[in-house]
Amino acid sequence: MRIPLDREDGQPLYRQISGYIRRGILAGSLVPESRLPAVRALSRDLGVNRITVETAYAELEAEGLVDMRVGSGTFVLPSYVQSEICPARRIWPDWQGMLREHMSGLSFPDLESDPEVVRFNSGLGDSRFFPMDEFRKVMRDVLRRQGTEALESGDVRGHEPLRRNIASILGSQGVQVGAGNILITSGTQQSLSFAAIALLRAGDTVVVESPTYAGALDMFRSMGVKLAPVPMDEHGMQVGRLEALFREHAPKLIYTIPNFQNPTGACMSGPRRRRLVALAAQHGIPVFEDDYVGDLRYEGLAQPTLKSLDTCGNVLYGSSFSKMLMPGLRVGYLVADGPAYDALAEIKRVHSLATSSLLQCAVHEYVSVGRYAAYLRKSRQIYRVRRDAMLEGAKRHLSGVKIAPCTGGLACWMELPEGVSCTELRKYALKERVDFTPGPRVYPYPAQGESFMRLNFAAHSRETTGEGLQRLGRAMEKAAG
Amino acid sequence: MRIPLDREDGQPLYRQISGYIRRGILAGSLVPESRLPAVRALSRDLGVNRITVETAYAELEAEGLVDMRVGSGTFVLPSYVQSEICPARRIWPDWQGMLREHMSGLSFPDLESDPEVVRFNSGLGDSRFFPMDEFRKVMRDVLRRQGTEALESGDVRGHEPLRRNIASILGSQGVQVGAGNILITSGTQQSLSFAAIALLRAGDTVVVESPTYAGALDMFRSMGVKLAPVPMDEHGMQVGRLEALFREHAPKLIYTIPNFQNPTGACMSGPRRRRLVALAAQHGIPVFEDDYVGDLRYEGLAQPTLKSLDTCGNVLYGSSFSKMLMPGLRVGYLVADGPAYDALAEIKRVHSLATSSLLQCAVHEYVSVGRYAAYLRKSRQIYRVRRDAMLEGAKRHLSGVKIAPCTGGLACWMELPEGVSCTELRKYALKERVDFTPGPRVYPYPAQGESFMRLNFAAHSRETTGEGLQRLGRAMEKAAG
Repeated sequence: MRIPLDREDGQPLYRQISGYIRRGILAGSLVPESRLPAVRALSRDLGVNRITVETAYAELEAEGLVDMRVGSGTFVLPSYVQSEICPARRIWPDWQGMLREHMSGLSFPDLESDPEVVRFNSGLGDSRFFPMDEFRKVMRDVLRRQGTEALESGDVRGHEPLRRNIASILGSQGVQVGAGNILITSGTQQSLSFAAIALLRAGDTVVVESPTYAGALDMFRSMGVKLAPVPMDEHGMQVGRLEALFREHAPKLIYTIPNFQNPTGACMSGPRRRRLVALAAQHGIPVFEDDYVGDLRYEGLAQPTLKSLDTCGNVLYGSSFSKMLMPGLRVGYLVADGPAYDALAEIKRVHSLATSSLLQCAVHEYVSVGRYAAYLRKSRQIYRVRRDAMLEGAKRHLSGVKIAPCTGGLACWMELPEGVSCTELRKYALKERVDFTPGPRVYPYPAQGESFMRLNFAAHSRETTGEGLQRLGRAMEKAAG
Repeated sequence: MRIPLDREDGQPLYRQISGYIRRGILAGSLVPESRLPAVRALSRDLGVNRITVETAYAELEAEGLVDMRVGSGTFVLPSYVQSEICPARRIWPDWQGMLREHMSGLSFPDLESDPEVVRFNSGLGDSRFFPMDEFRKVMRDVLRRQGTEALESGDVRGHEPLRRNIASILGSQGVQVGAGNILITSGTQQSLSFAAIALLRAGDTVVVESPTYAGALDMFRSMGVKLAPVPMDEHGMQVGRLEALFREHAPKLIYTIPNFQNPTGACMSGPRRRRLVALAAQHGIPVFEDDYVGDLRYEGLAQPTLKSLDTCGNVLYGSSFSKMLMPGLRVGYLVADGPAYDALAEIKRVHSLATSSLLQCAVHEYVSVGRYAAYLRKSRQIYRVRRDAMLEGAKRHLSGVKIAPCTGGLACWMELPEGVSCTELRKYALKERVDFTPGPRVYPYPAQGESFMRLNFAAHSRETTGEGLQRLGRAMEKAAG
């Protein structure tokens, strides 16, 4: 125990020791039944006489805070006193206040959870379909076979067999790259963070779709980056507007979600994909392609990824196993070419070091091309049925709502009837115990999102979706009335 | 398979399909014996006639690239052609070139590994002592007991029981905080990255010790941050120089390693600790305290952490289980108070989301206060012996070298004899198959480190250390001659 002692302080050392321990007990950091260091050990650690420590302990015992048990040590007793000893700190250093201001654009999401609320605001699929038994077996094998190697710090770029494996999966999806183009990260959020750290400085401008993924908007805002929004329509980003934006803002990055865009669900058309890739290359502006649910398609044709159309290393491609497998795995990847790959690997090294070897080995064992394809097939089946339940239920219970086409992904995008504000609706919805992602969360200019909401269907059974939409219908009646 | 097809291209669709697959096979992303999509599935995905796909496959078969096996599908054959189809890209977009320039201050570490080299340049302990069987058991229990919950996306701040657990361990080490002050990260590197993202912008100045941890220097450089070095001596950072630096640079952060400083091994004296904490608070400059091996002490008194001396929330404290337990676990933590804690949690959310729940649950089960203390005791014993082997061996084999006092941590810091340059010595050392951390790596102004080197002892047995030092002795003779 490293107790701060001040030998020039007027207070005797034993008092400093007992005072420190008392504060710990009353603040709860020294929990009941925990053992204090042996007198001998603590006196040696602190360079004080044994009697000093004994006196301190005796004082604490006299106060009923600890119990000295002969032959076994000194133990913390349960304390029923509500602590007033650590005064609430109300005055913080100036830089702390500035941090708050700095981040005023960000939302601090509510972390409470009421299990009765139907959460259409989820961004994930349903974990109950995850083949837990298989994964458990894989983890056991990895720990047995690889031993401590799985717990050592591995290659910063990622476990090589896993990178080869991902290259094969990407090959089967139309992105032809090698293991040397793949950087393992903890997920798309981290991939995007690394790209931003490499390419952006405070005050720079980034082109984003409007609306787009809230987590990307928040990340860019946290870095003091300016946003140049391009409106979406049913064919994806309105690529025709890009050149004007390039002239006006000289952006340093274009962030796009071409497939089943979050939140609108729109798929960028083939011609727009080609035009975007060509324009960005021509103006020398890098593109970050977020393919968060790439192949989770229920109808329609597969469109090529932007990365597969990129001939000059101008596109960075990010995806992960979080949406398709389990979010708690925290294994994703970033695809890049040339110097950008090296720079991103270096950014990874200095901002987070390697990704957990153990998880990478497990994901590698688990995710073969065949198993991935099978899991994708099964997910498509389940989620398509759930999507249908959402569409039917919304038609029945949410009168006046316009539903955007939804051919893939995890959520539906809806426009509210005239006169219903999303912020207002959400208040009634939470009272009815149903939640959704409010439009303002996903717009670069939040006020533009007041007529929209996003509803996740993938995480919920048909029944839960039906129940949730009934509640939301009641909330809408109240919000409209 | 999402093959990019261009219907306005002059090339027939079957040619586009066969061309795409051919490139994949020759580039190696479609590996031998992998199965191409069924004709029916691919024609549906791409919205083309079945005959188009069949024609493409037939062309590939005629070239000997694939094998159509009746009743089982079309398979990739081993290809012996060295690919000339994907031309080496030599012209990159301008922004890629700029990335390189941008990062010119960073080193790209050599990733090759020759098992015969004695690596005194490690920054870690010895993983062979890790109680693998216990950990395996813990992991099995977690997966059985918590099921899919362990694979879901948890609280961004970190698994609550683990945070409480860490608060108890910190309490036993003299930092009295609650679970609400602890933010789980993937390690100190990430903790430091979050603090830098929250507090620094390109062009800002950060006060660093000189020399200091290379990974921190590289991280600050990657963000375009200026470095204001404070020299070290045997009592730690020369705190008396701080006020002049504050006036000159108005720094936004002070980064310090008070215990067994990396690389010098120096421990900051008690009076300097108090002065540093007071000065920083008075000038409103936040301090990041990197306690990377906090309690790994072989002799001497325990000094209080800066965090325990901080009364106003001005100190951020980072540590991890990577040095003491296993680096591959990637679980560390950041301690902060007040608005800074909320801001850092938000930075974590937008730059990486949650840390793997599975690993957090496993670390929580594994790391109890008692087990941590026992592991610490054992590590101290083993590493103290190894430290002694390093000191004795260095005296015997490295004549003229001055060895800094080393009372804890994982490495020794040495000054080379006059006339021997570290960069020169390392060339000879690598020929002798021994490596070390060269001084320039750890200095804010690299040239100032030419007379120094850091040698890790914790990762090596007595015998390996002896052998490595003999080799280094031979290299020194050559470098001096």
